[in-house]
Amino acid sequence: MHTAFLQQTIKLAVKSTQIHKGGPFAAIICRDQNIIATGINNVTCNNDPTAHAEIMAIRNACSQLNTFQLKDCVLYSSCEPCPMCLGAIYWARIKQVYFACNRYDAALAGFDDSFIYDEIAMLAEQRKIPMQHIKLKESLDPFNAWQTQENKIPY
Amino acid sequence: MHTAFLQQTIKLAVKSTQIHKGGPFAAIICRDQNIIATGINNVTCNNDPTAHAEIMAIRNACSQLNTFQLKDCVLYSSCEPCPMCLGAIYWARIKQVYFACNRYDAALAGFDDSFIYDEIAMLAEQRKIPMQHIKLKESLDPFNAWQTQENKIPY
Repeated sequence: MHTAFLQQTIKLAVKSTQIHKGGPFAAIICRDQNIIATGINNVTCNNDPTAHAEIMAIRNACSQLNTFQLKDCVLYSSCEPCPMCLGAIYWARIKQVYFACNRYDAALAGFDDSFIYDEIAMLAEQRKIPMQHIKLKESLDPFNAWQTQENKIPY
Repeated sequence: MHTAFLQQTIKLAVKSTQIHKGGPFAAIICRDQNIIATGINNVTCNNDPTAHAEIMAIRNACSQLNTFQLKDCVLYSSCEPCPMCLGAIYWARIKQVYFACNRYDAALAGFDDSFIYDEIAMLAEQRKIPMQHIKLKESLDPFNAWQTQENKIPY
């Protein structure tokens, strides 16, 4: 069953490059073995660097189910999720992930997710993109406002 | 100057909780010291777990500038970016990042980005969300289709 869903995901990724001229990636989200939503890489078509296949599939599934959590859902991806998509999978509370290529296959094809995996593990000040923590006296104001906010929706 | 932009970002994050009932986070993207776009946390309002402040600011800035890369842009965030947003920052080619709280401040307020940072560093099979690589004979088909695709836009 997982193999069949992955094969369908791979076909969608091939179609993504051929029809939409998008990146060679696709994802499918299922619940109870039914497809809830699909996603293809729309980075260049949508001018959105966050529009990876997994992110698009998560957004589409949430919209379909009218929720911001996908607790009972399984994600199939044509390739191992990059750190951005992996983060999105955790925030969406996806139950399980299957993928058909890994980050090294992606690197050979020119998509260097490995580089970002390495960068994320570093301290902020050691990364290639300089990142600086400037602590201000009002830094915690947003969290204090959140703590005292009534009717908030935790997520 | 960086302090002033961060202070503005913090104010926007406070407003996010009070007016939009969203999470206590905001981000601002600048180019040549001019604000190009802002973003607040829209996870619960939009039913989109990927709608963190930094992701929203990146999407808005790309839409504003009609591009999928923000090479000359600086991102100010009320809090250290989570791994998803950090990945998005790399894919968007942001030049520099400043933030006012760190991941430990966020954890104290109930936002456990630290957990996701720890998970990302693990091997796929050791993570809390089970992730499985199933290599199929057609796994590389999308990358092969990409290699031979004419008129593609690399990203």
